[in-house]
Amino acid sequence: MITEIAHLRIDPARAAEFEQAVERAAPLFRAAEGCHGMALERGIEDPAHYQLRVEWESVDHHMVTFRESDGFRQWRALVGEFFVEAPVVEHSRAVGKFY
Amino acid sequence: MITEIAHLRIDPARAAEFEQAVERAAPLFRAAEGCHGMALERGIEDPAHYQLRVEWESVDHHMVTFRESDGFRQWRALVGEFFVEAPVVEHSRAVGKFY
Repeated sequence: MITEIAHLRIDPARAAEFEQAVERAAPLFRAAEGCHGMALERGIEDPAHYQLRVEWESVDHHMVTFRESDGFRQWRALVGEFFVEAPVVEHSRAVGKFY
Repeated sequence: MITEIAHLRIDPARAAEFEQAVERAAPLFRAAEGCHGMALERGIEDPAHYQLRVEWESVDHHMVTFRESDGFRQWRALVGEFFVEAPVVEHSRAVGKFY
């Protein structure tokens, strides 16, 4: 299992509307092959910065299977208008949860 | 509850040694007032980049209480030598876990 970390920059004035759009989009991830969870976090020092964290079985489940799916197009249709910069995406692997 | 996200840059040649040092340091966080969990993640595209994610009751539990404690000095004594750049620290708040 790996984690997609998408760094999203949003106009803070539209934060509530954006958060509702992500919630509406959750079923798209729930239905995506190899997707096991999704969480949204908002920066405290920088409230225009959100991290969307999505658990995938592999990087390819995200970058190939999902990116080429209708689910991805629907996701972007729901939330794309809120991005004030192009999202920056990275992936990470858990080394350890210590408690 | 809030999450500290510390971006740590390490020489990848010393990754195993660094990860062992973080594991040895876990009891310092376990003993810290207001600390509820700690996880280490390593970048896939950029394996020199680690995210240390620590759950705290508040930003002050991290930035004031912990930073002024012996635990913080011991943490830095264990892992400071591995940092090839000064750590960058931010905090985030969970907006939602969608499944």
